[in-house]
Amino acid sequence: MTSTSDPAASPAIVTAAVLVIGDEILSGRTKDQNIGFIADYLTAVGIDLTEVRIVPDVEDRIVEAVNALRGRYDYVFTTGGIGPTHDDITADAIAKAFGVSIDVDPRAVELMLARYQATDLTPARLRMARIPAGADLIPNAVSAAPGFRIGNVHVMAGVPKIMQSMMDAIGPTLAHGRPLLSETIEAGTGEGAIAEPFGAIAAANPDAILGSYPYFDGTRYGTRLVVRARDPERLKAVAAEVAAMVAALHARA
Amino acid sequence: MTSTSDPAASPAIVTAAVLVIGDEILSGRTKDQNIGFIADYLTAVGIDLTEVRIVPDVEDRIVEAVNALRGRYDYVFTTGGIGPTHDDITADAIAKAFGVSIDVDPRAVELMLARYQATDLTPARLRMARIPAGADLIPNAVSAAPGFRIGNVHVMAGVPKIMQSMMDAIGPTLAHGRPLLSETIEAGTGEGAIAEPFGAIAAANPDAILGSYPYFDGTRYGTRLVVRARDPERLKAVAAEVAAMVAALHARA
Repeated sequence: MTSTSDPAASPAIVTAAVLVIGDEILSGRTKDQNIGFIADYLTAVGIDLTEVRIVPDVEDRIVEAVNALRGRYDYVFTTGGIGPTHDDITADAIAKAFGVSIDVDPRAVELMLARYQATDLTPARLRMARIPAGADLIPNAVSAAPGFRIGNVHVMAGVPKIMQSMMDAIGPTLAHGRPLLSETIEAGTGEGAIAEPFGAIAAANPDAILGSYPYFDGTRYGTRLVVRARDPERLKAVAAEVAAMVAALHARA
Repeated sequence: MTSTSDPAASPAIVTAAVLVIGDEILSGRTKDQNIGFIADYLTAVGIDLTEVRIVPDVEDRIVEAVNALRGRYDYVFTTGGIGPTHDDITADAIAKAFGVSIDVDPRAVELMLARYQATDLTPARLRMARIPAGADLIPNAVSAAPGFRIGNVHVMAGVPKIMQSMMDAIGPTLAHGRPLLSETIEAGTGEGAIAEPFGAIAAANPDAILGSYPYFDGTRYGTRLVVRARDPERLKAVAAEVAAMVAALHARA
């Protein structure tokens, strides 16, 4: 694990975890759209998403997960539970995880006054301005109530549109490693036929990550072979080996 | 936590965790479709999905997650990593987590011979017949290579079609509690306006779970208010309170 808050430092590998908070995802009522977005975003900027957890709206479970993940990865990104209702307990749970106090934050109130009349800042809406002591705010371009960053933990909304605007605000502040580049080769066959030669290429090229992803398109099986490497030349070389292996296979068939 | 393998026992609450195994989900290349399916499935049969983790194709990480989850929940369901290629290491990791041996299982080979000619059972395809000692097989109606159950852990394929056929095979063997029933009331407004009266109803009805799920439809915010309870009469009563609260709010507006 590499720890840095200086985006210029560019260590070789930067790791991250996502923590999705919400009963509605676990019950199936809401289908998560945030994990895939954050995964794409982090991959594009050269941060390796290494673990995801989804936990219910239960304080102890949030505290436990935040503390497990923030000690293990360079960054943690949470989604969900920062709205105005009684079941939005993420901010309080994060304060508890860090052992700091939490209160209505004047900076957050100011951001919210850009959208709400002062008379509309009801106690419920002011819940959204509760920020743990020592946290920085994450602006919300969509609906004003901010997220926040404390230590290496970034706390974002669960509504995808809002979460995405927060991720865009966070992006430039993040350290990132050399991006893991990838090339995909369609095998044109099921996994079984390519497993042996593909495994041999993987064994011979330990600096590349080779993955094989079977799919079923409704009538037949196919397999996407994915080569990942940080060095573009090595990526090209190993991907060429895989493409040659696939071509040889079909020539024989 | 309630532990039982007798479906007839019907304890009040049965819990489950899902463990998604695969670099391709963490890199964003593949968008997970299994978590939402399993969440819906378990909710429908009265099993509470209580935690989800996504981990990479790394043996130690799989072992750690399996052991953390199987001790904590009645059931664990894993997806991914049971194909024929070098990066399919789930079966070996599960054997390690349980401290049992693993080898090609004659029962699995027999199932695979229903689809493959004996001469096509290459060493790579035979990897799919590696089953930890003491496990029961989970049939695969789609592509023959089975999943397996060991202890309270159900190991399924990652391809959604195959995973779903395995889930259907597993379903009748599971103990389940009283299903958590739900009703949804559209608030017709953002969360801020309903947070206080909604929270008051939640506080007054501790036997129901009240959740509030804001959304943005492209032009405006709405909120789905969800009431969940195991008792149908209580569900009806609390949902009626919420509907009356929403009606009163709009009458005032």
